[in-house]
Amino acid sequence: MADSHSKISDQLEWIAADWGTSNLRLWAMDGAGQVLARCESDLGLNKIADGGFETVLRDLVAGWLPDHPGADGAAIAVIVCGMAGAKQGWREAPYASLPAQPATLAAGAVQPDLNGSGLIVYILPGLKQVDDPDVMRGEETQLVGFMAENPDFAGWVCLPGTHSKWAQIANGTIAGFRTYMSGEVFALLSQQSILRHSMQGADDAQAFEQAVKDVALPSGDLLHRLFTIRAGGLVGAINGQTGAAQLSGYVIGSEIADIVARLGKGDTIALIGDGKLAARYGQALRVHGFDSAIADVEGVTLGGLRLAYHGLVK
Amino acid sequence: MADSHSKISDQLEWIAADWGTSNLRLWAMDGAGQVLARCESDLGLNKIADGGFETVLRDLVAGWLPDHPGADGAAIAVIVCGMAGAKQGWREAPYASLPAQPATLAAGAVQPDLNGSGLIVYILPGLKQVDDPDVMRGEETQLVGFMAENPDFAGWVCLPGTHSKWAQIANGTIAGFRTYMSGEVFALLSQQSILRHSMQGADDAQAFEQAVKDVALPSGDLLHRLFTIRAGGLVGAINGQTGAAQLSGYVIGSEIADIVARLGKGDTIALIGDGKLAARYGQALRVHGFDSAIADVEGVTLGGLRLAYHGLVK
Repeated sequence: MADSHSKISDQLEWIAADWGTSNLRLWAMDGAGQVLARCESDLGLNKIADGGFETVLRDLVAGWLPDHPGADGAAIAVIVCGMAGAKQGWREAPYASLPAQPATLAAGAVQPDLNGSGLIVYILPGLKQVDDPDVMRGEETQLVGFMAENPDFAGWVCLPGTHSKWAQIANGTIAGFRTYMSGEVFALLSQQSILRHSMQGADDAQAFEQAVKDVALPSGDLLHRLFTIRAGGLVGAINGQTGAAQLSGYVIGSEIADIVARLGKGDTIALIGDGKLAARYGQALRVHGFDSAIADVEGVTLGGLRLAYHGLVK
Repeated sequence: MADSHSKISDQLEWIAADWGTSNLRLWAMDGAGQVLARCESDLGLNKIADGGFETVLRDLVAGWLPDHPGADGAAIAVIVCGMAGAKQGWREAPYASLPAQPATLAAGAVQPDLNGSGLIVYILPGLKQVDDPDVMRGEETQLVGFMAENPDFAGWVCLPGTHSKWAQIANGTIAGFRTYMSGEVFALLSQQSILRHSMQGADDAQAFEQAVKDVALPSGDLLHRLFTIRAGGLVGAINGQTGAAQLSGYVIGSEIADIVARLGKGDTIALIGDGKLAARYGQALRVHGFDSAIADVEGVTLGGLRLAYHGLVK
């Protein structure tokens, strides 16, 4: 431990942070923008009382910092994206407006006052869209990282999650975006509605795809389809082992049906996400005849934070 | 009190009951089918432990029964509709099948064993639809009561609620029905989602109607529209005092958009409901150019139970 600590602190140049509602992710970064160490915590916004942000951050990165800062006393920069910049967060970083380019984000960063942590914190703004009201905090940084990796990309980027986002990218600019409450609605329905009794069963790709088809437009009858999960079991029409896959298919399928109605044939789609959820979105898109590529969340998050670091610090 | 007790028990011929998931309603009925007394309790299915149904019923109607049953010892009939007949209820009354007529319901009634309450209980079956899986328990009795009052009705009857139902009626028969989880989804979103922060504000008919229009097909983008309630406040696009009306408009509007796509121009619609919720449904239907008449819940419930009583007992 002592060895690895001293190694990190020797090479540490800055710290990257994604501070969301329910999670905090930190990365120790070297001068070449490579990851020296990672830290994940559930100390998201929801769990932090007034004024606790600096203490939480200092405690989590203490092992990465030099024991005795050099004579130059240079503070370590921490670049933060996510809900830490919300009104109810650490310090409000007012939303940047559309259309947005990578430089927009760094320009809007705010610096909370600190009590001598040996750190200097920059909190990046989120993005707002006034016409068709929408907001994001954190995803804009992932989009910037994605655009840096894919400078010629033109099309739609989807970021599945609690509040899933679809952003339209063209000419290196975020032109607009659209949020769906799919993840939160799925969680509430699967855990707290009458449907919680029907959530047995493992993954069932076929039931998921059928649900995506059933909820497709022109019908769009999500609120009815949901109840068929319960009723199907009661009348013996389904075997009771596909409820979770059906619910997922109806909710994600409802989102996808709405977005594909806005796409042109052959539009390019990228998914930023890991694992099962991104795979489900890809599967639902294929039902509608759209291919999609998956980009790694950590990679694009760090890409966006790295650009902000260079814009703000060096 | 003693006087009114003795009066009820003198005239009591049978008892009508609507035993739902969260409520129990009881009516003391005379020989002419008129209401002698009413009792409401929150001792719905959710609050009753194993075997507690008979005790709860006996306690609530004790004051209506003769202190010393007559020499003929005739038990008082209790006709029950609702979730008491579910698998997890008092005693399961298997679902009747479509197409259903009033006589179907009485024929499928079950009698739970009692421990000498001086009562004889009949629990009415619900209805099931296998093709496009759906179920109801309790609403079928309201539909029967409605059909008895309106023997020539042909069209759709809507029963707004936690799980809102739309039944198609023709030739004195329930031909099919369709459930929407609108009420439960509204409750979860308004109380437990991120939208709970945006539920200030009183009724706003204009915001409700705009939301009904915004969520209308062909878009059907309910999961996106929901988030605009939150985002609209954050970006200053809405004044923050219309969130509850908007949520109601998006959810009810999504249901109405789906149902009106199934209606023919000029189809007749009746709403079974009281007060604000039925009025909201009527308002949403008017946005789509449909008129509707409102029928009283208690009246049609008692109408259905009265028919069952005459079919089963006399």
